[in-house]
This record gives sequence, structure tokens and C-alpha cells, in this order.
Amino acid sequence: MSSGATKASANNVVLGVDIGGTKVAVGLVDRNGNILTQGRKPMIANGTPEAAFEAVTSAIDSMMSEASGSIQSIGICAPGPLDPKTGIVLNPPNLPAWRDFPLADKIRAKYRVPVKVDNDANAAALAETRWGAARGFHYVFYATIGTGIGTGIVFDGVIYHGNTGSAGEGGHVSIDYRGPVCHCGKRGCIEILASGTAIGVRARAKLAAEPSRHSTILDLAKGDIASVTSEKVAQAYAQGDPLAREILRETVDVLIPWLGNIVDLLDPDVLVVGGGVAAMLQPFFEEIKSRLPAWCVNPRASEIPLVMAHYGADAGIAGGAALCADETS
Amino acid sequence: MSSGATKASANNVVLGVDIGGTKVAVGLVDRNGNILTQGRKPMIANGTPEAAFEAVTSAIDSMMSEASGSIQSIGICAPGPLDPKTGIVLNPPNLPAWRDFPLADKIRAKYRVPVKVDNDANAAALAETRWGAARGFHYVFYATIGTGIGTGIVFDGVIYHGNTGSAGEGGHVSIDYRGPVCHCGKRGCIEILASGTAIGVRARAKLAAEPSRHSTILDLAKGDIASVTSEKVAQAYAQGDPLAREILRETVDVLIPWLGNIVDLLDPDVLVVGGGVAAMLQPFFEEIKSRLPAWCVNPRASEIPLVMAHYGADAGIAGGAALCADETS
Repeated sequence: MSSGATKASANNVVLGVDIGGTKVAVGLVDRNGNILTQGRKPMIANGTPEAAFEAVTSAIDSMMSEASGSIQSIGICAPGPLDPKTGIVLNPPNLPAWRDFPLADKIRAKYRVPVKVDNDANAAALAETRWGAARGFHYVFYATIGTGIGTGIVFDGVIYHGNTGSAGEGGHVSIDYRGPVCHCGKRGCIEILASGTAIGVRARAKLAAEPSRHSTILDLAKGDIASVTSEKVAQAYAQGDPLAREILRETVDVLIPWLGNIVDLLDPDVLVVGGGVAAMLQPFFEEIKSRLPAWCVNPRASEIPLVMAHYGADAGIAGGAALCADETS
Repeated sequence: MSSGATKASANNVVLGVDIGGTKVAVGLVDRNGNILTQGRKPMIANGTPEAAFEAVTSAIDSMMSEASGSIQSIGICAPGPLDPKTGIVLNPPNLPAWRDFPLADKIRAKYRVPVKVDNDANAAALAETRWGAARGFHYVFYATIGTGIGTGIVFDGVIYHGNTGSAGEGGHVSIDYRGPVCHCGKRGCIEILASGTAIGVRARAKLAAEPSRHSTILDLAKGDIASVTSEKVAQAYAQGDPLAREILRETVDVLIPWLGNIVDLLDPDVLVVGGGVAAMLQPFFEEIKSRLPAWCVNPRASEIPLVMAHYGADAGIAGGAALCADETS
């Protein structure tokens, strides 16, 4: 367990927990959204439900000692689909150990504090709204663009869940109904077109199709096309590689119509993007902003700020904590 | 002025006004959403702002006499874009007479009653929620599919306007970012793919491309391809014409991914569709419902009712009245 700070007073802190398929990240977060200390434990995603639960409680316990033994509440990001009202984890593809697992109830019973559970994108959207890049905004659309694309909607400081808790799945909004099949089964979802995974696929396909074309991407991959990732594309772009620029521009070309759909349906007052791909696309933000109005019927689309998320890799911890922020204020 | 009922008591009625590019429809609506009496006047869309305003007040005045001289409030559907908060009509393409026209203020000053203004799809969505097919639902998505496609979102009985009043423009959600250019300038909007206009275009193109193919559509158009409309396609479908079936099925094929986008972003508890094209697609509703879950990551998409709107051609009158319904309840 790594730790970034001295022991925190338990009075004003909540515990944020971010459960992934391979790790559990935990952190103590103060009422201003500062992560005071954090750590990670391995997750056991494929064993028994109990083993997975113990991986989570082990991570929580280690952080409890950092917090002088008690914390005010626990907020958890868990893999979806889940029911945020009941805190039941339904049937997450990357956490097969849990099926209809009453995570909130079990954590509540063990630690006897208020517990909230939501998916990572919703929770991160809330953290950005309360403490980050969307502070002061009322109609927030948040997207984390990394290996996949997750999105969350926050209206007037409250996560918009829709009727069954499955709202805000913007990563699976299709802009190409005859396009490539997403792993979700739909065609042309923005996730299959613009995620880090998609960028890697596109880069490898282009390199394979034009073996005679020199590219820094391939140099960085030591000539091994199979090992090309979106990160190598970003590095090559930073070094001025034309193919990398072409690939990132194609990504921008699909993100703009997608954002236009979001704007015309939701009319947000801010667009917040986080995640590794968002970071690598930052040089294109001005271009995206200037081209977006052509993809919106909203006559005021040009006024909507497009901003980088405040939280990075620790967005899940901050998000978990944000779910409980009512308890601290 | 036509009239459908005897004089109405003014105590519990509101006046619904539906301003279009060519006509003003007005009606008295009771607190249960029943249209007690209604009428139409021509609209003057291309003259002075005052002439257009007088066309509206003339229609209102004629209805006032039906209501024993006074009504409780006036709700108006006006062509967008407009600001529903201020009731200012901004710059509607099909009503050039008005630019930044303070419609609500001017009607309020003249009649000294509360006045609300919104666009027709938003207002109709609210009427369906209060009195029609979406009664009892909390997360309502409404679409009117006719010459164009307009949509409205109602959450917990309140129209969702977004930050600038331009939310709910679902007709311009694109599902084909490299597809045909919509009159709005975007590509692949569902309006350019599935509206009545789009059905007519598709029918005429198919007939022109296969002149040797017999179709009832062409018989109904007396052999004149240029006069083929979506209505003739619907009539031919009702007579078992294979080409008409093909055209309507292609329309269904694009509506399903579009509804999937709506479901995954908004997670509504009901989908209400109205308008002429929705009526002609009613034979396909079961097919749409059964195919929709494949276009949704929402695991409970199959549970979402897809229903025909309660209001038909008078949706604008009911919608206008619904905007004021707070005043009557």
C-alpha cells in the first residue's frame, strides 16, 4: 500500500473506492475534493463473490488505519451495469465474480457508515462538477476517453440516472449505424471509433496497409506493428509524425459529430473530457471547439466550454468520494 | 373560424395557440386536456412583425368570444429557435417576420393573463405527459415524425430545456456522420433519413432508378414520379405494395439505431411518437420494439413502452395549453 500523506482527521473526510477488473484504488478525500492519501490493492475479479469482496474490504481496511480508524462515509465506483439506487452490482463483464451482488448493503453492514455506489464515469462526472473542471456549471456532460469511452451527465449537481440507472451511456451513442461493430453489439458507437483501443486499431491497420510508408509510430514500436498502441501514436504525434497527426485528426473527425449529438439533445453548459485520449487530443481542442457549431443546430453551441478534466488517473477515487459529498457538507 | 363545441366556461380553461408558417391554430382546453373548441386563421409569416402579430391576436380574439370573453392563461407554440424563459422568438426560418420578437411580453400586455411560449415539439411532449400517452411516466421522450422530426424531453412533468433552451433537438441527432446533408447543415440527422420528406425522396429515387418495376405507389401518383409523397407510400403499403414495404422498412432501419441512442443517453421510461409518419409506421411498432434492445446497452431496453401519441393534428393546441397547465391545477 502506498501512501501520499500523513494521517488525516476523520471528521471531514470520506473514503473513495474505485473497483476495477484488476485493482482496487482507495483514497481519503476531504470536503474540497483533495485526495489526502491513496493506495491500491489487487482485485480478484474471477474468483468467488466473497474473494472479490475481501479484496475490496482489504483495500478499505488499509485506508481506515490511515484515517485514524474511522471515516464518515464510503463512496464506491464499481463496474456496471449496476443499480445506483440499491447499490447492487448486476452482471459486469469485467467482474464476473459478482452477479446481483448487494455491494452497498454489504459494505454498509461491515463498516456501519453511509455507502453510495455508482459507475465510474457518473461518479467522475460528479467529482468534476463538485470540485473540478465543471464547478459552477449546471448542465454538465463529462466523458472519459481512454481504453473505452464512459460518460456521465450531471444536472444541477445531481447525477442524471434516468429511469433504470442506465442513463448517460454516451460512449455507446452511434454516429455510424452501418459502421464497425462495437463490443456492445451496436454499430458505430463512438467507443469503437474514438477510444484509445480504436486509435490503436486504426494505427495498426494503416501501418499494415502501407508498409513502405515511414512513420515514427513504427520506430517507437521497434518495427513491431502488433505492439502499436494509442500511446505510441501520441508520442509520435508529439514528435511531428504525419501519420500520427492523420490518425488523431480522424479521431477528432468522429468526436465532433458525436459531441454535436450530445449538445443538440442535452444543451449542456460545459463539456468536460478526461482520460488518456483526451489528454493526447488537447492540441486539437481549439479545432474541435471551432468546428463543433457546424454539427449543432443549437445556435449558441460556440459558447459551450470544452475543458480538460481536473482529475486524472485518480478520478475514480474522487468520484467515489463525490458520491458521498452530501454527507460532508 | 370553425368551432367544435358550445361556449366554454372560462374558469378552468386555457387557450392553446399553435403558430405555424402558414396558419395559426387556437383552441380552448380544459384542465383534463380536452380541446373544447378550436379554430384556424391564416398566418402572415413574411410581412411586418406587426402584421404577423395581428394574425395571431386575430385568432386569439375569435376564440375569446367562444370563451365568454375571458380565459385564464395563454400558452403558445411558436417556431424556433426561441427562448422559452423569456418568450422571445429569435430567428425562425419559417417565420421571417419575427426577429428577436418578444412574443410572450406582447401577448401578456394585450390580454393581461399569464403567457408561456415554447416550441411545438416540447409543448406537445408536455401535453402527452400531462394528458396523453405519457401520463404517469417520469422520463418522457417524445418525437413527432412528419414533414420534419421534432422531439421533446419531459422529466418529472417539466420540459427539459437545457442551458440555453435548445435541448431536445433529437431530430438532428446524427446516426450517419458521413451521410446525406440535412437542411440544418449536419450530416445524417434522423430528420434527413426518416421524416416524411425523406420517405418521399427515397420513394422517388427508387422509382426513378427502376422504371420497369411496377409499384402501386406510382399507380397512386398516376404515373407522375414527381408527385410521389410519403402519404402515397403509406397508401401503397396498405395495399400490400412490396416497394412501399421496402421503403418503410428502411425507415424503421434508421429509426431503431436513433432510438437506441436516445435510450442509452436518456434512459426514458416511455417513448411516444406522433405525426403522420409515426401513424404510417404503426404496423412496425412491434418490430421496432423487438429490435431496439440490440441497439441499446441499457439491459432493460425491452421494457420501455413505444406508444403512439394521443394528440394528432391538434397536438400544438394541446401543447400550448399544457404549457399553462400549472395555472389551471
